[in-house]
Amino acid sequence: MFQINDNYLKLPGSYLFSTIGKKVREYSESHPDRKIIRLGIGDVTLPLAPAITAALHSAVDEMGRAETFRGYAPDLGYDFLREAIAANDYRARGCDITADEIFVSDGAKCDSGNIQEIFSLDNRIAVCDPVYPVYVDSNVMAGRAGDYDPDSQTWSNVIYMPCTAENDFLPDLPKEAPDLIYLCFPNNPTGAAIRREQLQGWVDYAMKTGAVILYDAAYEAYITEPDVPHSIYECQGAKSCAIELRSFSKNAGFTGLRLGFTVVPKELKCGDVSLHALWARRHGTKYNGAPYIVQRAGEAVYSRAGKAQLQEQIAYYRKNAAYIYSGLKEAGYTVSGGVNSPYVWLKTPKGMTSWEFFDCLLENVNVVGTPGSGFGPGGEGYFRLTAFGSYENTVEAVDRIRTL
Amino acid sequence: MFQINDNYLKLPGSYLFSTIGKKVREYSESHPDRKIIRLGIGDVTLPLAPAITAALHSAVDEMGRAETFRGYAPDLGYDFLREAIAANDYRARGCDITADEIFVSDGAKCDSGNIQEIFSLDNRIAVCDPVYPVYVDSNVMAGRAGDYDPDSQTWSNVIYMPCTAENDFLPDLPKEAPDLIYLCFPNNPTGAAIRREQLQGWVDYAMKTGAVILYDAAYEAYITEPDVPHSIYECQGAKSCAIELRSFSKNAGFTGLRLGFTVVPKELKCGDVSLHALWARRHGTKYNGAPYIVQRAGEAVYSRAGKAQLQEQIAYYRKNAAYIYSGLKEAGYTVSGGVNSPYVWLKTPKGMTSWEFFDCLLENVNVVGTPGSGFGPGGEGYFRLTAFGSYENTVEAVDRIRTL
Repeated sequence: MFQINDNYLKLPGSYLFSTIGKKVREYSESHPDRKIIRLGIGDVTLPLAPAITAALHSAVDEMGRAETFRGYAPDLGYDFLREAIAANDYRARGCDITADEIFVSDGAKCDSGNIQEIFSLDNRIAVCDPVYPVYVDSNVMAGRAGDYDPDSQTWSNVIYMPCTAENDFLPDLPKEAPDLIYLCFPNNPTGAAIRREQLQGWVDYAMKTGAVILYDAAYEAYITEPDVPHSIYECQGAKSCAIELRSFSKNAGFTGLRLGFTVVPKELKCGDVSLHALWARRHGTKYNGAPYIVQRAGEAVYSRAGKAQLQEQIAYYRKNAAYIYSGLKEAGYTVSGGVNSPYVWLKTPKGMTSWEFFDCLLENVNVVGTPGSGFGPGGEGYFRLTAFGSYENTVEAVDRIRTL
Repeated sequence: MFQINDNYLKLPGSYLFSTIGKKVREYSESHPDRKIIRLGIGDVTLPLAPAITAALHSAVDEMGRAETFRGYAPDLGYDFLREAIAANDYRARGCDITADEIFVSDGAKCDSGNIQEIFSLDNRIAVCDPVYPVYVDSNVMAGRAGDYDPDSQTWSNVIYMPCTAENDFLPDLPKEAPDLIYLCFPNNPTGAAIRREQLQGWVDYAMKTGAVILYDAAYEAYITEPDVPHSIYECQGAKSCAIELRSFSKNAGFTGLRLGFTVVPKELKCGDVSLHALWARRHGTKYNGAPYIVQRAGEAVYSRAGKAQLQEQIAYYRKNAAYIYSGLKEAGYTVSGGVNSPYVWLKTPKGMTSWEFFDCLLENVNVVGTPGSGFGPGGEGYFRLTAFGSYENTVEAVDRIRTL
C-alpha cells in the first residue's frame, strides 16, 4: 500500500501568492466595476523588448525549417547563452566564472526550489526572516525543516535570521552555525541591499564554518549604488562556498517566458566531491533543458540593442519605485527599499497586521500589495509594494493610498 | 559543515545519453570525413509544423505588445491548453478526465523525475527491465532505491519486472507487492505495446494491492492497432490508482520546445489526502509554469490544421519504423516493436553485448543506436533503433547495417 510524502501535510495553508490571487479574484467578481491596481506579485508588465521578440521570431523560423531545426537542447544550456552570461554578467564585473560553471534553467523559482536536493537531509538551513517562501517550503517538502509551530510560525529545525528596522533589514551572523545559508540581495521582500564588505563578511563566515551560501541575485539589475555587489563572486573566496541563482524575469521581463541560471563554481566541494558534478547529474537526469527559442531570447538580452532597450525598461520600473518610496514617505509612511530594488517595504499604519492592511487597501482603494507576514513572522506589520506596474497605475495607486 | 546528498554517489557512471553523446563526439572528431547517421537518442528531426510555428509567431507578437503581454503563467497551466487536452486526449476517447486534473509542465522527463517527490521515501518501486533510466535514477537520488550491486546491475530495494522475448516484452505481475509501479506503453525502449485487457489487469492489480501506477504514455501517438489503449484511463478504475504522464515531444516534435503534462485524477487518494492536492502544491512551490508562447504552440497541436500536419509527421516516422523493422528482419535480425511505436528493438548478432554492437555499428557503418544494456540488465544483448531520423538516412542506415 503506497504512502505519501507526509512532509507535505506539515505545510500550513497554501502558497502566499495563490491566496492573494484568490482574494483578489473574489473581490473582483463581487465588484466588477472597480479598477483594481496590482502592485502585489513581483510580475513585470512591460511587453518584451523588440530585440527579444526579434530573436524569438528568428528562432521560431529556424525551428520551422529542416536545416535549422533543433531538438533536445544540451541539458546544461546552449554554449552561445552560457558564454554570453559568463562574459557579461561575470567577466565584465571582474568575476572569474567560466561558461561551463553556468547551468541554464527555466527560472530561479525552480532552481531555488530544486537546489536543496543535492544536499544531505541532515543539513540545517538558515533563512532571513522575512524571506521568499520557496526556500523554506522546498526544505519542508524534503523533510529538512522539522516541525511547524503555528504560534511562532516557525519551523523547529530552521535557523531564522531576523531582518528588522533595527538592523536595517540586514541579518546578523547566526549564533548557531547553519550548513546552508539562503541569502537574497537586493532582498525580496524588503528591498534591502548589502554592501560589498558586508557580503564579504558572510563569505568569510561561510568559509570559516564550512557552510554553503545559496545566493539569490534575481534583482541585481536594480542596483544603482556602486558599493553594492551584483554577484557574490565579487567577494574573495566566494567560489569555494557559494552558489548563485539568477533570473531573466526582472531584468528582461521573462516572467512569462521562463529563463534563469545557476552558477556552481567547480572549486566548491565537499571533501572530494564537486557540487558542480552533482548539479550536472541532477540536471541531466531530471531536466531536459530550456527551450531553444527562449535561450536565443536570453542571448538577445546581451546584444547591444537588447542592453539598450532593457536599460530603458529598468529605468521605467526604477522611476516607479522612486515614486512609491517618496510618495508614501511624504504621506507619513515608514518606508525602505526601492533604491537598489524594485520593492518598497513599508510599515503598516495604525498597528494593523499585514493582512488587515492588505484587506484595507483592496477594499478601500482597490490596490493589491503583498502582506509582509506572508514572508514569515518577521514580516508581520510590514507590506510590500512592487514597482512593476505601469507608471500611470503606480502614480494612481500611491495617490489612492494617500487618501486613506 | 554542510554535507551532500550522498545518494548521488551511489549512481554508477553517467547518464546513458551523455555517454553515447561523448562516444559519438570523440569518433566524429577523429573521423571528420565520415557521415554519421544517428538513430540513437529518441529525438525528432522534422521541423515544427506550420500550424505550430504560426501559433508561436502570433504568441510572440502578443508578448511584444503592452495590451496582450503575459507575465507569470498559472502554475498548473493555461485553461485554454488544459481544456484542449481534456477534450482531445481524454473526452474524445471516452475518458472522463477534466481540465483541472491536467497539470501542464515543461516535459515528461521532468515530470517522471519529479513525480516520486510526493510519495513516501519508504515506498518501494517496481520498474520494467529494461526501462527508461530516469525512473530509477530519480528514485536513487531520493534515497528510495537501496544499494547498487555492480554484478547484477540492480538496486537492492527496487522490484524488477523482466521484459523478455519469452513474455513478448510485457512484464508479469510482480511477486512482491510494490507501492509504486512505473509502466510505459508503448514501451521505451522495447517498442512493445500493451492490449487494453492486459492493462486492465494491471489496474485491477494496483487497486487490489493499493499501489499507484505511474503510466508514461509519451508514445501513444504511434499506436496503430485498435485494441491498444492510448490512455490508462480507458481502463475501469484507473482514476483511483493511476497517474498518467504525457509529452508533446514525440507527437508534435516539441523535444526542443519543451511541453508535457501529467494527469492526476481527483479521486486518487491515500486515505483522505488527494494526490492532486499534493502535486498542485509541488507545482505551486517549485515550478513557475510553462512559457505562454509554448502553451499556445501546444494548443495549436489540437487545431484542425495542426492535427492534419502532425498526422503527416507521425506517418513519416512510422514509415521509417516499418523500414527498419522489415529491413533488419529480412537481413536475419530478431526484431520487435516498431508497429505501435517509433522504436525497433533488436537482438544483437553473434552474441555481442549491447555496447560491443554499439561500437561495431559506430565504427564500421557509422550508425548510432542505443545499447539495450543502458536501460538495465534486462536490455543486455539488445539494441534500440529509432524512427526519428530522415527517411533517406533511415534507409541508408538500414542498408549499411545489412552490409555487416
